[in-house]
Amino acid sequence: MENTLNHIRVGVENAVPFAGADEFEAAKSNAVKAYNELLNVSGAGNDFLGWLDLPSDISKNLIGEIEETAYYLRRKSDVIVVVGIGGSYLGSRAVIEALQDSFKFLHKKKRRYPMIVFAGQNISEDYHAELIDALDRLKYSVIVISKSGTTTEPAIAFRLLRANLIKKYGHEVAASRIVAVTDGSKGALKSLADKERYRTFVIPDDVGGRYSVLSPAGLLPIACAGFDIKQFIKGAEEMETALRGHDKPEDNPAMLYAATRNLLYQNGKAIEMLVSFNPSLAYFIEWWKQLFGESEGKENKGIFPAGAVYSTDLHSLGQFVQEGARNLFETFLWIEKPKKNLSVPMEKSNQDGLDYIAGKNLNYVNEKAMLGTIKAHKDGGVPCITISAPELREKYLGALMYFFEFSCAISAYMLGVNPFNQPGVEAYKKNMFNLLGK
Amino acid sequence: MENTLNHIRVGVENAVPFAGADEFEAAKSNAVKAYNELLNVSGAGNDFLGWLDLPSDISKNLIGEIEETAYYLRRKSDVIVVVGIGGSYLGSRAVIEALQDSFKFLHKKKRRYPMIVFAGQNISEDYHAELIDALDRLKYSVIVISKSGTTTEPAIAFRLLRANLIKKYGHEVAASRIVAVTDGSKGALKSLADKERYRTFVIPDDVGGRYSVLSPAGLLPIACAGFDIKQFIKGAEEMETALRGHDKPEDNPAMLYAATRNLLYQNGKAIEMLVSFNPSLAYFIEWWKQLFGESEGKENKGIFPAGAVYSTDLHSLGQFVQEGARNLFETFLWIEKPKKNLSVPMEKSNQDGLDYIAGKNLNYVNEKAMLGTIKAHKDGGVPCITISAPELREKYLGALMYFFEFSCAISAYMLGVNPFNQPGVEAYKKNMFNLLGK
Repeated sequence: MENTLNHIRVGVENAVPFAGADEFEAAKSNAVKAYNELLNVSGAGNDFLGWLDLPSDISKNLIGEIEETAYYLRRKSDVIVVVGIGGSYLGSRAVIEALQDSFKFLHKKKRRYPMIVFAGQNISEDYHAELIDALDRLKYSVIVISKSGTTTEPAIAFRLLRANLIKKYGHEVAASRIVAVTDGSKGALKSLADKERYRTFVIPDDVGGRYSVLSPAGLLPIACAGFDIKQFIKGAEEMETALRGHDKPEDNPAMLYAATRNLLYQNGKAIEMLVSFNPSLAYFIEWWKQLFGESEGKENKGIFPAGAVYSTDLHSLGQFVQEGARNLFETFLWIEKPKKNLSVPMEKSNQDGLDYIAGKNLNYVNEKAMLGTIKAHKDGGVPCITISAPELREKYLGALMYFFEFSCAISAYMLGVNPFNQPGVEAYKKNMFNLLGK
Repeated sequence: MENTLNHIRVGVENAVPFAGADEFEAAKSNAVKAYNELLNVSGAGNDFLGWLDLPSDISKNLIGEIEETAYYLRRKSDVIVVVGIGGSYLGSRAVIEALQDSFKFLHKKKRRYPMIVFAGQNISEDYHAELIDALDRLKYSVIVISKSGTTTEPAIAFRLLRANLIKKYGHEVAASRIVAVTDGSKGALKSLADKERYRTFVIPDDVGGRYSVLSPAGLLPIACAGFDIKQFIKGAEEMETALRGHDKPEDNPAMLYAATRNLLYQNGKAIEMLVSFNPSLAYFIEWWKQLFGESEGKENKGIFPAGAVYSTDLHSLGQFVQEGARNLFETFLWIEKPKKNLSVPMEKSNQDGLDYIAGKNLNYVNEKAMLGTIKAHKDGGVPCITISAPELREKYLGALMYFFEFSCAISAYMLGVNPFNQPGVEAYKKNMFNLLGK
């Protein structure tokens, strides 16, 4: 079984046979219930559904302001440092890493857009000291993303960078190189931004961090990297319309994905690996891990979200997936068409025995590796779901991200948990504050 | 309970209470049995124990040749491309990423050593096309690492890079810029290297890929990046002596770690997360995932190896770890002392509320985050093992890697599987070859 909406295709033919047909029917009707809960705003956490309308609600005005600010920052920066953690970090990083040249850092002269680097997503002394040292000889700006402005990790990084900017450029110019993405009315960062007259964008109250990539928290860094946020939003908006307009798992790939993964979970599959054959999706996988892990992992329930980049990790985790404990399933995220064009060259000697694929594009070989893997893992007892998109372009990334957000909300409702809270994230903070004597 | 050998400390006081005391005793005596199997060369796969002696057996002569070759390549290269996959990739990458400046790529002029980049660890068309494009304006060399020379992924990359080198420099100079690390007597790469007179290093027959970081497969790239392989080997050698000289889990941290993780596995903990608070250990975690996943994941058994970088992922997977399905445990890998020195600056306004830690080093805060996390997760039902090393330096990385290799072999013997084979890795290849019409 498979279906496609707006070029995003979900196939579950290698997964559903691992459960009974009646169980699949039950999972599908649960998905319908969850879908209705979501769209009728009757489920848990329904004051955090702002993400549902982000693509269709965003104004041309706001898009224009984001683009103008990105242009302004780019013009004066070799590097733009994005300060944020969790949902204020992973969404933009996922999109930027997916779209940018993997070896951009080796291009010294050819760079049209600044390098985007990230800070405040950890408390590493080496990481931040090395960053500040590297920035010493470069022109840079800072985007600080935090609803409260008091989350420890980004607050430390922003203190460091702000002090460094002031030392480097003076107070006034430093303030012109800082943009805050924060709460619309309250919080430490909002107050500071008002006082210092930072350019400011708002994260809506009813949008949680991990659902915020289509808000300025995601859009501004993406635009700074030189990518087309209009297309990104357009892809998401078309997906929004499509998913909201199809209320059956037979027609709605987000429901089909949610139904299938819950079916597998009910059948003892405790781990889901999101697998890409495209290394530039490594951070997309990290974004997905947060989305599903933080939405579902509560009340002693949830599918453990893991990730892999194949074929790299076929030579690492592949043995386990093929023959290890049978408690996992895989979801393959496949991009049909590469951006570049490169084929295996001919070689007279053929010592490496590769001439049988000489002239073939690498992506052709990569696809056969994927198809061979799905067959091998399925035969080994691992259910495989497939999700595909046509190309790694802004539009399809927007569609994919909205697709996963929508699936995730349905999936968590099917599990009986609130997809939009994260009460467990406070526990380590409380202990840390105690130990720090706060 | 805890113990320390050569500065590597293992603590299991937050893990062992999750099982009965008698079970822990049983696990420890199983670890003794496995230890004897390993050192008496009586266990499964005992023709692949060459890694046990790698640190003590390596000759000054070979170290000198590696260092000389590294110097030779560095002198003529802006970039050195390391071609390999699995064990011919992850070990050197783990060490290089752990030791090098995280923002080295932003230093245009200050670079003393070439950038090390990796190829042939995937079949991505974009990745390899972008690499070749970036190399166009740079001086570069290639280290190709493959026992057979016919593994699809590195063979494709090497064909591409070799053709590019020949086009750029001519046949003869290209050959002088290629170093092969391969089998000592047979195989496609060995034949080509002989014919083309490449400089060549040998991967010993009795050392498997994931145990090869202390062979030229790991050492040559590490030396090229400018790191001290003598110290790396010395740390491993001291650990070799220490672990072989202590045959009880009470004195031997590798046995204690193996005993504890198997104890947890027997108690339903199906997933182990190796967690570091140091982002530069991300690839060390990947190396560990291969080591344990490929060694243990067979006969429908094994602990699923996952990884996380905290506190980053406390804002992503943290919710799941704190309150999700109770099927996991964590192993914290802590580095006591950072390389750099950076503290939280004072700020008059204190709008972010951070003044209570002003003047404190970031690592102090990071350590409190770790201690708070261990307490929170343990309280939430997640057993926590801790492993610590003094500093991120060559010596301690060598010690840590040997420690994990030794633990892994014991752990797999305790599970009743051969730690040194990987029969399941062939399945996807076979299907792929069929689909490619080989």
